[in-house]
Amino acid sequence: MKYFFGLLLWMKVLGASAQETLKSPDGDLELKFSLDNKGVPTYALTFKGKAVLLPGKLGMEIAGDSISLRDGFRITGTQVSSVNDTWTPVWGQSSRIRNQYNELEVALYQEKRDTRILLRFRLFNDGLGFRYEFPKQKNLNYFTVKEELTEFRMTGDHKAFWLPGDYQTEEYKTSTTLLSGILPKLKSGTLKVGENYPLYENKGLVSVQTPLMMKSSDNLYINIHEAALVDYPAMMLELKGQTFSAHLTPDAVGNRAYIQTDFTTPWRTVLVSDDARDILASNTILNLNEPCALESTDWIRPVKYVGVWWEMFVKGSTWAYTNETNTKLGKTDYSKLKPNGTHGATTANVKKYIDFAAKHGFDQVLVEGWNEGWEDWYGLWKEDVFDFVTPYPDFDLNYLRDYAKSKGVRIMMHHETSAAATNYERRLDEAFRFMTANRYNAVKTGYVGYPIPRGEWRSGQWMASHYLRVAKEAAKHHIMVNSHEAVRPTGLCRTYPNWLAQESARGTEFEALADSDPDHTTILPFTRLVGGPMDYTPGIFQTTFDYYDPSNKKRVHTTLVKQLALYVTMYSPLQMAADLVENYERFPDALQFIKDVAVDWDETHILEAEPGDYVTIARKAKGKNEWFVGGITDENGRTAQINLDFLPAGRKFKATIYEDARGAHWETNPMAYGIRTVEVTSKTVLGQILAPGGGVAISIK
Amino acid sequence: MKYFFGLLLWMKVLGASAQETLKSPDGDLELKFSLDNKGVPTYALTFKGKAVLLPGKLGMEIAGDSISLRDGFRITGTQVSSVNDTWTPVWGQSSRIRNQYNELEVALYQEKRDTRILLRFRLFNDGLGFRYEFPKQKNLNYFTVKEELTEFRMTGDHKAFWLPGDYQTEEYKTSTTLLSGILPKLKSGTLKVGENYPLYENKGLVSVQTPLMMKSSDNLYINIHEAALVDYPAMMLELKGQTFSAHLTPDAVGNRAYIQTDFTTPWRTVLVSDDARDILASNTILNLNEPCALESTDWIRPVKYVGVWWEMFVKGSTWAYTNETNTKLGKTDYSKLKPNGTHGATTANVKKYIDFAAKHGFDQVLVEGWNEGWEDWYGLWKEDVFDFVTPYPDFDLNYLRDYAKSKGVRIMMHHETSAAATNYERRLDEAFRFMTANRYNAVKTGYVGYPIPRGEWRSGQWMASHYLRVAKEAAKHHIMVNSHEAVRPTGLCRTYPNWLAQESARGTEFEALADSDPDHTTILPFTRLVGGPMDYTPGIFQTTFDYYDPSNKKRVHTTLVKQLALYVTMYSPLQMAADLVENYERFPDALQFIKDVAVDWDETHILEAEPGDYVTIARKAKGKNEWFVGGITDENGRTAQINLDFLPAGRKFKATIYEDARGAHWETNPMAYGIRTVEVTSKTVLGQILAPGGGVAISIK
Repeated sequence: MKYFFGLLLWMKVLGASAQETLKSPDGDLELKFSLDNKGVPTYALTFKGKAVLLPGKLGMEIAGDSISLRDGFRITGTQVSSVNDTWTPVWGQSSRIRNQYNELEVALYQEKRDTRILLRFRLFNDGLGFRYEFPKQKNLNYFTVKEELTEFRMTGDHKAFWLPGDYQTEEYKTSTTLLSGILPKLKSGTLKVGENYPLYENKGLVSVQTPLMMKSSDNLYINIHEAALVDYPAMMLELKGQTFSAHLTPDAVGNRAYIQTDFTTPWRTVLVSDDARDILASNTILNLNEPCALESTDWIRPVKYVGVWWEMFVKGSTWAYTNETNTKLGKTDYSKLKPNGTHGATTANVKKYIDFAAKHGFDQVLVEGWNEGWEDWYGLWKEDVFDFVTPYPDFDLNYLRDYAKSKGVRIMMHHETSAAATNYERRLDEAFRFMTANRYNAVKTGYVGYPIPRGEWRSGQWMASHYLRVAKEAAKHHIMVNSHEAVRPTGLCRTYPNWLAQESARGTEFEALADSDPDHTTILPFTRLVGGPMDYTPGIFQTTFDYYDPSNKKRVHTTLVKQLALYVTMYSPLQMAADLVENYERFPDALQFIKDVAVDWDETHILEAEPGDYVTIARKAKGKNEWFVGGITDENGRTAQINLDFLPAGRKFKATIYEDARGAHWETNPMAYGIRTVEVTSKTVLGQILAPGGGVAISIK
Repeated sequence: MKYFFGLLLWMKVLGASAQETLKSPDGDLELKFSLDNKGVPTYALTFKGKAVLLPGKLGMEIAGDSISLRDGFRITGTQVSSVNDTWTPVWGQSSRIRNQYNELEVALYQEKRDTRILLRFRLFNDGLGFRYEFPKQKNLNYFTVKEELTEFRMTGDHKAFWLPGDYQTEEYKTSTTLLSGILPKLKSGTLKVGENYPLYENKGLVSVQTPLMMKSSDNLYINIHEAALVDYPAMMLELKGQTFSAHLTPDAVGNRAYIQTDFTTPWRTVLVSDDARDILASNTILNLNEPCALESTDWIRPVKYVGVWWEMFVKGSTWAYTNETNTKLGKTDYSKLKPNGTHGATTANVKKYIDFAAKHGFDQVLVEGWNEGWEDWYGLWKEDVFDFVTPYPDFDLNYLRDYAKSKGVRIMMHHETSAAATNYERRLDEAFRFMTANRYNAVKTGYVGYPIPRGEWRSGQWMASHYLRVAKEAAKHHIMVNSHEAVRPTGLCRTYPNWLAQESARGTEFEALADSDPDHTTILPFTRLVGGPMDYTPGIFQTTFDYYDPSNKKRVHTTLVKQLALYVTMYSPLQMAADLVENYERFPDALQFIKDVAVDWDETHILEAEPGDYVTIARKAKGKNEWFVGGITDENGRTAQINLDFLPAGRKFKATIYEDARGAHWETNPMAYGIRTVEVTSKTVLGQILAPGGGVAISIK
């Protein structure tokens, strides 16, 4: 299944020159590596002759080591090679992925410490990946990273789409400022996750986190992130002037990472183009990850699901079965507690969702709040919060399991851990065996709160290893994972494709908890989604919440149609239809798009894109002659130019267009939509009007 | 099996007087509880009219709470009751244990915080136990302890037998100084665990740890410790003047304990007598622990064992199979590594120990270094060190399992964790299942190093809960536990009698690693053993190590006979004969005592005792008309007066006396011993000469 066109052009140069250059396959990107006169490794990057990164330092500081790996290096050899092949993802935005790059390996030797390291650079046509490699050697078996010294030196005061470098969360709104605006805004103290979310404090906040999207004044699009975060902390970026420096999330005692050689760091990635669409089309992060590590993958299937969830945000349903508190796992007799009457995960309510899923072809029904512990789950730094196997008295597990089976639907498991990862790990095997015994094959995990082990952060090395450990253990049980509040993804879903999706950004829930800006989902594809699929949970039809409660003035910051478009623009093999099923029954014609839209694809075409403004994407459903187009805009209305030249030539297709009605507006008239069908061909270019905060969704057969 | 003679004398006093008194059943001890004029709870203790504890404060400081539980209390009720019953331990120093005490419960209310707490005092004839109780209540569901405010106010500059309050270890030599000498000695920087043990640094060292033994100038013996350390950090003691204040081991972020009500702290214990023997005879710590929590205990049996262990200290055997390092769990192919030729746990060597055990009637053979990982286990803060289920290539697990079975012997499992408790917990279930499948029913656990979760300490709340969790999980698999490097015990073996023993003090290994003083084992019964049995691993016959290597000038700091006596003076239901089997074969007559001596007892009689000087103990073997006497002395020779009036009157018995030979001396002539038999009756008083650093061991049938 894998074709290697790799051509090894290596040249081994002992006592090599202190400067090496490497070009991307198309020649547009050029990397210059050199050692300065103190033996400090530096690298610089240009695109079509324009500077992207000025010469920035590379190196590593080792804890308890008087001699750092920061200078005094000499080059002992370099090696250049090329790879051009394709591979087949288990699921994805396209059914084949091209992996084409030129590689420069630089072997460095530091005499003072008698230490060898390697730097490996890969230049794709759309960007650079590089990493540190520490071979096993006499003087370097185990070491502790005090700090990684990688610099990213920008060339100007770029526009940046950024989140603060919070060790704990990615759930902020994106700030859009010049680089020079970042520190003042951070210092202003105005950044917060959400007014109803006091748990997230800006502890340990440094400048920004990744993926960081930038645009230069001469229209270069630059994205900094990382690939394959394995056994290492996430990289934050500290800004000084126009230079970003790596800042690794520390552990409980202030160290960054514990390393055993041989070891390779995650790849540091810099995507570059003068066309914003190339950033969205990039597969570089995936290509830098290792191939699938699972023995079988036939049990992994993209999932479209509904669930007992949104009602907790808009209808006052509760995760907890009771308002009594101070319960103890395994000791409290819940049958003796007074039910609060607002519990969402009741047998009757879940049955209603199963019926809906069966009727409309959804695969699964997520049920949050099914298990004991929710009275006391939050903000207590409590370790034994949940046992993951004990349902509340009003959730009839056996009945619902069998009923779902009779309807051809699965219930999706929910493992909120309250970030007590130690508790989760010691119960994990039992929890997964319980799932298998009860016909669950997918789990949504949650990590709300400060982690246990106490002092660790959600983006630190220990927790990063934890999430991956859970995904790997889940794979042994043929369980798919959707992790919420985990560290932002870095393409590991290629290696562990049962790790279908993550949250790790401000999802739809924030429309109810606080708010999200109308441009939010025009930015996310350039930031969060660069690392992998997001369980964004779109599909809110009832966008205003005074519908439920006249005093609730919150609302979704999109039109209804934009909610449909998100199924195409926010790529994920796991897609929720998040609204209440009764709302879907009110709009069956709009629901039809969610029912039809694919969650796995043969082809993806980025038609239009500008971060913070608009995104238009077309995709071909996997194995079917069906295409879906999603277009979204920010707070400004616009006319999308939708060129259907991706369709097979010479044939006619029926396009069903879900569009904002005339006068629609995310704030004043969000739910006005129209549906029309037109005949289209590969020569059709649709000029489609999008309302302010609006969108368009098209299905083509 | 339990007889309750309890008589409840309660009096409920609303708006009670601000002073309450309570006497011990024999009237010798008197407790005075009072509130001072600021509403601060205080308590004081006298023994036969002499002050033992001056009025000391009680209270609790809560993290993040502006109103502490330190003052402003009023008494809302008191309750006095008495208990006098007996209970039957699964194993122990006697087959029936009397539990007799008077109790005072004081209900306190703090208006400012609208909080109720209880203080519970129990006065036994030999000491005091008291604890804090936090009932479940509206304003106190969860809280974080910033500091416990308990004071122990001494009455003078007592002589103290103390260890520094190191969060990590109890393996120091005991320092014997006046209270006024403690801080100067701590500040001198001369305290260390052992010259060859660099891992143990005095991190987080505060004044002293418990059990703390003291002797006043007017000959009161006072011991401070705690009972039932459950879900709470161990208590260290900070000294200011002559007042000790509780100092709880902090966690990774500096908090002390996370509490959910209702909750009771461990008991703080103060044993008091004017006869040192009463301290050794005390069952107060056990009585303050909860009764056995296990459903069945018939699978729990005291164990006498030998093992592949001492040769690592004196013969250069290694735990590791290879001298190659940088191995990775599950990735390294050990069959491709070069064996070092010094590995101790080889099939042939273990077989030799099995043969020896079978021939001489030992129950088990401990094998350390049987499993992969020992090349890189130490001091690296590595998490995945061991998997606990994979033997080295030269340890034929299946063969040895079957061979041991054919000989009626069991192999004892060894789980060194390298203090990576997270790794151990996630593998625990598999490790125990592996044990059961391979006929292991006892495990020696080890926690050498700084814990993972990083930032936690071996005596902190998280780790204390961990050790107990392991013991409880082991019980589910009918596995007995012997934990090394765990926090010092507090009598939990009553509740979980499968937790046979712990190390938690400077054991015999230090005679080879560094040294131990000749008075060491005359102190341990007054300190470490107050909390529970110790796996001290006595029985070294070849006490000088130049026997193995002329350049090795180290030695055991006892005579050979004292090594025998330790089987009686160092009570444990788990006793190792620690020397090499070839050494035992050289001294078959001395070995006979180890073969004969019981490890479980009907009766115990403390004949003579003075901390730091001497201990003489007689015990009756459980269910047999056999008695064993052990007497030891410090660096000074002495004549023990061994009164055999514990023997049944009117009958004659044969006593076999193992004694230091004339001229024996721990340093100059340690291995000279004699064995003689005499006829004795209950009227016999033996005047037995003990050599400097010597002892006597007697078996009576």
